[in-house]
Amino acid sequence: MTCSSVQVQPYLLEALEEKFTLHKLDTTTEPDKAARFLRSHRDSIRAVVGTAFVGADAELIDQLPNLEIVSSYSVGVDKIDLAKCKEKGIRVTNCPDVSTDDVADLALGLMLAVSRRLCPIDRYVRSGLWSKLGDYELTTKFSGKTVGIIGPGNIGMAIAKRAEAFGCPISYFSRSKKPACINYNYCPTVVDLAANCDILVVACALTPDTRHIINRDVIDALGPEGVLINIGRGPHVDEAELVSALLEGRLGGAGLDVFQDEPNVPEELFKLDNVVLMPHVGSATVEARKAMADLVVGNLEAHFLNKPLLTPVV
Amino acid sequence: MTCSSVQVQPYLLEALEEKFTLHKLDTTTEPDKAARFLRSHRDSIRAVVGTAFVGADAELIDQLPNLEIVSSYSVGVDKIDLAKCKEKGIRVTNCPDVSTDDVADLALGLMLAVSRRLCPIDRYVRSGLWSKLGDYELTTKFSGKTVGIIGPGNIGMAIAKRAEAFGCPISYFSRSKKPACINYNYCPTVVDLAANCDILVVACALTPDTRHIINRDVIDALGPEGVLINIGRGPHVDEAELVSALLEGRLGGAGLDVFQDEPNVPEELFKLDNVVLMPHVGSATVEARKAMADLVVGNLEAHFLNKPLLTPVV
Repeated sequence: MTCSSVQVQPYLLEALEEKFTLHKLDTTTEPDKAARFLRSHRDSIRAVVGTAFVGADAELIDQLPNLEIVSSYSVGVDKIDLAKCKEKGIRVTNCPDVSTDDVADLALGLMLAVSRRLCPIDRYVRSGLWSKLGDYELTTKFSGKTVGIIGPGNIGMAIAKRAEAFGCPISYFSRSKKPACINYNYCPTVVDLAANCDILVVACALTPDTRHIINRDVIDALGPEGVLINIGRGPHVDEAELVSALLEGRLGGAGLDVFQDEPNVPEELFKLDNVVLMPHVGSATVEARKAMADLVVGNLEAHFLNKPLLTPVV
Repeated sequence: MTCSSVQVQPYLLEALEEKFTLHKLDTTTEPDKAARFLRSHRDSIRAVVGTAFVGADAELIDQLPNLEIVSSYSVGVDKIDLAKCKEKGIRVTNCPDVSTDDVADLALGLMLAVSRRLCPIDRYVRSGLWSKLGDYELTTKFSGKTVGIIGPGNIGMAIAKRAEAFGCPISYFSRSKKPACINYNYCPTVVDLAANCDILVVACALTPDTRHIINRDVIDALGPEGVLINIGRGPHVDEAELVSALLEGRLGGAGLDVFQDEPNVPEELFKLDNVVLMPHVGSATVEARKAMADLVVGNLEAHFLNKPLLTPVV
């Protein structure tokens, strides 16, 4: 088995080492070393453990002739070549549901933090400025604002449920009306949704269809009072358009957990008080990561014992 | 009329100036100047507009022989000598309800910000450390944690309603069981509540009974994994005990909107990543402050037109 060691917690590494023969692929070393590593283990590797950052692309899959399963320590599987896995009969599993609450919590945390300016205000107090300069400027109420959700799946619905308790009317976009969203307002296009909400949340999976689902038109429809929350994936957003809209005041604010080229964040955002910047931590709680690790190991054990996979994707 | 100009927004000042003869008492100047100000206007002042920071104490009331009403631009009236007002037939009004949502929102924002370390993580990304040092350490899940509420009044219940949507069981303390809290777990003492919750929220009014309601025993019962949220008033908490518990790791974290000696915040807290520090901004949204200003003016108009007060306290 190989395992990309970025963002893999000791708890998972220990569990994998206890139950399997583990080869750790350090993707941060020079390409030559990674290539030598793969060549020397190519025939023995039957499983890959991926993450939200490093999965199993066509190149990796082609180098591992005996690969049977990719067990991903993530919800999203956008770093795995699913078509190629299907074609070659390689199974794929992910970690759905166990981090749904945490990602939804972060979405609400970002909405509250952007509306009420929690991070810059905390910096203001910490810098001793309250006693020197007096009150911070007034912020914006969150309760009652219309929340627009792109992708009313498990995470989107968990966000909606929480926002409803704040008296927020919910609107959503998906390819078709969802029976589970009977109390929510359906918008047939993302631009329509953006024009009819105060806070727009990206909560869909990243697919070729949803790449740059937040583009200039959507940002313009959201407008100078609108707030964008992205707890999906960086490429959901045309990041250059987002940055220029924020710098020019054409968008009211943003809470971003994901970026186009992680861990690189556009530096122009560092000085803005109307953005909250998170390093892809939607599921980065002790509780969620332990549950995810248990699923990664559980799926591998099920596979090698010829039992049904716990959370199969392919 | 006199009006303490700290924390009073231009919108309110304009409305007061339009409808009344306004004398602005700048409480930040030297005492002599304030005393001269009061002496020169003592006979003409029939109303005082106070705030959460400066109200009407016995000394001020004694200096104003024609005072008829104190209309406070705040929810809490702890800066007003209510007994003296009652004795002298001076009416008192406050601004209940209109900021309930905002204070409850801030409480939830603080719970999420402390649990998920939103402020230090945002600082980490802004400092360019994500790309240099890699992932921030794992944080704590919020959903499902038990929330203990001291004071299930309007604000406490609004907090409970929101926390319930995150799957948080609710416990509460008040002098007696509340019929409206039938689904919540009643704790007969604050220590009992602290011992049986993960996150403890102070949401009661400040009275002689609730001063230092958070003391060493309560902090010890809450413990090294527990989190304290104070959106009440600074004197609810024995601040020296809180600071030492945080510095010594005997308390897990704190989200504080209020302090004992505002605007002074204990500087030892400035370096801690497990606290979020706000400068008394529970109701500091554009929306709430406008509604509060309308109530301040509405109460004064009602009084001088001999109509029933909108939100009488005394």
